[in-house]
Amino acid sequence: MMQLKVQPIDIKVGKYKVVMNTIDAKELGVNEGDRVRIKDHRVLTAIVDFTEDMIAPGMIGLYHEVQEQLKKEWTETVEVEPADKPKSTRIIRKVMDGKRLDRDEIYELVKDIVEENLNDIELAAFLTATYIKDLSEDETEWLTKAMIDTGERIEFATTPIMDKHSIGGVPGNKISLLIVPIVAANGLLIPKTSSRAITGAGGTADLMEILAPVEFTAQQIKEMTEKVGGVIVWGGATNIAPADDKLIRIEYPLSIDPHCQLLASIMAKKGAVGAQKVVMDIPTGAGTKIPDVKTGRKLARDLINLGDRLGMDVDCALTYGASPVGRTVGPALEVIEALQVLETMEGPNSLIEKSAALAGMLLEMGGVAAKGQGHDLAIETLKNGKAFAKLKEIIEIQGGDPNVTYRDIKVGQYTAELKAPTNGYVLEFHNKRIVQIARLAGAPNDKGAGVRIHKKRGEEVKAGQPVLTIYAEKEDKLADAIKNAREDLPIVVEGMLLEKVADITELK
Amino acid sequence: MMQLKVQPIDIKVGKYKVVMNTIDAKELGVNEGDRVRIKDHRVLTAIVDFTEDMIAPGMIGLYHEVQEQLKKEWTETVEVEPADKPKSTRIIRKVMDGKRLDRDEIYELVKDIVEENLNDIELAAFLTATYIKDLSEDETEWLTKAMIDTGERIEFATTPIMDKHSIGGVPGNKISLLIVPIVAANGLLIPKTSSRAITGAGGTADLMEILAPVEFTAQQIKEMTEKVGGVIVWGGATNIAPADDKLIRIEYPLSIDPHCQLLASIMAKKGAVGAQKVVMDIPTGAGTKIPDVKTGRKLARDLINLGDRLGMDVDCALTYGASPVGRTVGPALEVIEALQVLETMEGPNSLIEKSAALAGMLLEMGGVAAKGQGHDLAIETLKNGKAFAKLKEIIEIQGGDPNVTYRDIKVGQYTAELKAPTNGYVLEFHNKRIVQIARLAGAPNDKGAGVRIHKKRGEEVKAGQPVLTIYAEKEDKLADAIKNAREDLPIVVEGMLLEKVADITELK
Repeated sequence: MMQLKVQPIDIKVGKYKVVMNTIDAKELGVNEGDRVRIKDHRVLTAIVDFTEDMIAPGMIGLYHEVQEQLKKEWTETVEVEPADKPKSTRIIRKVMDGKRLDRDEIYELVKDIVEENLNDIELAAFLTATYIKDLSEDETEWLTKAMIDTGERIEFATTPIMDKHSIGGVPGNKISLLIVPIVAANGLLIPKTSSRAITGAGGTADLMEILAPVEFTAQQIKEMTEKVGGVIVWGGATNIAPADDKLIRIEYPLSIDPHCQLLASIMAKKGAVGAQKVVMDIPTGAGTKIPDVKTGRKLARDLINLGDRLGMDVDCALTYGASPVGRTVGPALEVIEALQVLETMEGPNSLIEKSAALAGMLLEMGGVAAKGQGHDLAIETLKNGKAFAKLKEIIEIQGGDPNVTYRDIKVGQYTAELKAPTNGYVLEFHNKRIVQIARLAGAPNDKGAGVRIHKKRGEEVKAGQPVLTIYAEKEDKLADAIKNAREDLPIVVEGMLLEKVADITELK
Repeated sequence: MMQLKVQPIDIKVGKYKVVMNTIDAKELGVNEGDRVRIKDHRVLTAIVDFTEDMIAPGMIGLYHEVQEQLKKEWTETVEVEPADKPKSTRIIRKVMDGKRLDRDEIYELVKDIVEENLNDIELAAFLTATYIKDLSEDETEWLTKAMIDTGERIEFATTPIMDKHSIGGVPGNKISLLIVPIVAANGLLIPKTSSRAITGAGGTADLMEILAPVEFTAQQIKEMTEKVGGVIVWGGATNIAPADDKLIRIEYPLSIDPHCQLLASIMAKKGAVGAQKVVMDIPTGAGTKIPDVKTGRKLARDLINLGDRLGMDVDCALTYGASPVGRTVGPALEVIEALQVLETMEGPNSLIEKSAALAGMLLEMGGVAAKGQGHDLAIETLKNGKAFAKLKEIIEIQGGDPNVTYRDIKVGQYTAELKAPTNGYVLEFHNKRIVQIARLAGAPNDKGAGVRIHKKRGEEVKAGQPVLTIYAEKEDKLADAIKNAREDLPIVVEGMLLEKVADITELK
């Protein structure tokens, strides 16, 4: 045990971490990455970093999170002693050794994940091990339940609670902006939490934010949903299934999404908002997360099975994902396309049909449409303006302007067109390249940035016709996007010579 | 691309890392853990941490290592742009997917490890994947060679160069202090690099440091070895196989040592100092790293095979590891025991015989003893004082006092004895508990701290006789060690009731 003087370090590291001088650490018998217990009016366990010069012997550097907890002032001292590793490190080792965990072990692990008791190395080892060898069905069920139980939960007094989730991977998937109002307009409750784009060009939360605030507490989500039937909010602002975000932080640099984590991540978020009947959109095809129908069916079965274990009724739709949904990618462009359908019923068939199909499934599951009648009721709800009216109510209750129309939404003022150099048909269409170009143009951070697609796979195009338009809010970002599009064409027209650079016209 | 003003953060993080305000990071299109390229008179790629308040928009926080490289002043600006992940991240993904790597991929990966281009998450994923599925023999060979080639190397003009390595796991293994002088006294060159204890009570470097400085460059190691025939230095002070230390930093919190990494780690360090003929000490038995002879034989075969691929002649000895070597654990106590053997030939048989056996193997491999005569020559070299004379030369050339005798070495002034409560035989003897008690008493940092073992497994003991003595330099550390020893006895005498607390007498 040592008495050390506090030196605050005003940096957030997302963990309970402290810095000790190597001399003190050796004296205390701890190595880099070990834990120490800091005793005060409360006890806190923190991971130790070493320094030879930044923190003097006799001092202990406390990062922001530890300061927050201990509320110590500069010049005060704390008692420091070596602490054992949390039990979870042995549990992670079991996973690495291919051994099965019991319910209590999974709960212990998730608790330590939520409480930031595990370092990045330990979390990475856990996720790598589950990537290499999937958790069992039992373990995945416990993982999901533990994720739900370690965060905020919404419990509604009425039933059924509907929800919808897309596993992502297809650009331009703005369907929630249509589905949520269709479902709510038919008297069902749908508290839709959604995400912001991490690697995409715009998540549903990024889109909705153009129309209204999206950051609410679980309690607010509940109240708003009870009042108008639905919301479209950012899940990240709540404390719903917080373990999930902490695992995603580690999965992201590894570009992995272990199967059991994917299942638990989706279902925990649905379970925590009290969802009872859920439709899953599984975009399938080249350039998506699900390369083929066989893989899609396996995921669907696993989601349905896990739903069953959680007492949730899950239906899955394998949807066409090789081309974008609709013809726009990027927040403002997507919102315009969605609002236009709601306001005028004009818009791409792929968007209207996909939205109506999935909304229809929910209407049938919720008992407000007869079997086989959901799709038609969804189309009817769009046509008769009830869906648009409901979206306005949702916008209003979330604090936005309910009188918005698609004509009000601003897109980036800097644009460029990619034109076909020859007559022919679109032979190749690369989803990931479209997203990359939209991101280079500024999406999702610049809401007005994105890509409008004029020609999709299989469509005919004449020489000189535009195949896509890039939008940007900033001139240099447009230049970056154009440069990138030139280097590796996202859309290839039959007969187009690969070495021929497509004609790009800037329209300012 | 953005222009950001430099804000130095005087903390060493062991990586090229920077901190950006979330607003700037979003604008630039990077997520937490992504890389940015910092352009200046030179280009540097660094990993980005996020902050919402510690670094203002328009600023970029540069941790110590980045500052060192860029040598930028406060108020200066740098150009920052998103950078791709290094190619190694895809190579790590291949390992996670169970795919084999080629030579170039392994070299690329090791280069990025050495240059600190990979974050802890990526390194942990790599090590976890190799822990779960071992690298192939080819891959392990390339890994070893890449580790050698990415660091300093020693090349001697003469031949043969001898070396010795113990894979560890047995306490009190001070044999290098005997083997190196025995071998060098017989005209062979042995540039022995050794480690400090991480989880043990004293590494060879911790022991030797009592007699002489142990931190030297590769060039100094070469020159000293050429002059006196041998050295005993700390490998960590050199830039020999630097990738190894960086991997050990990640393995430590996971308490893993993947088989391929263990092999590469040992052999890279031997290869880099130019070793041609190496004896491996593989302590085997309960409480060591190698639980049984079968596992030991497998490791021996793999080491011999890898040596063959590297052009190195490797002999392995499976040694008894279930009890400590000799009767002391902790730096000063171990040095006294080793010096006493060299000076007087008095000391525990286990120490003398093990040292003579391994030294004898080296003498035979080096061609200075006939087949089967090595052991006797080793004993002779001890008896005739030539080994002790050689150790004095080694101590002197490393800058220590060559007139040292075992009587000069100070041990901790605070001591306590653990006594047998009953007549009987030592039934259980727990290596790991002995090490734990020695560490609690202050070893290896307090050189005088440790444990002297009076009774080993199978030895007879009378009620009231001491079974071990704990030494400490500080009174409170002695108290910690006693408390721990009382809670869970490291030595159990037959007939000793488990619930009965052994008598501990403090002798101050």
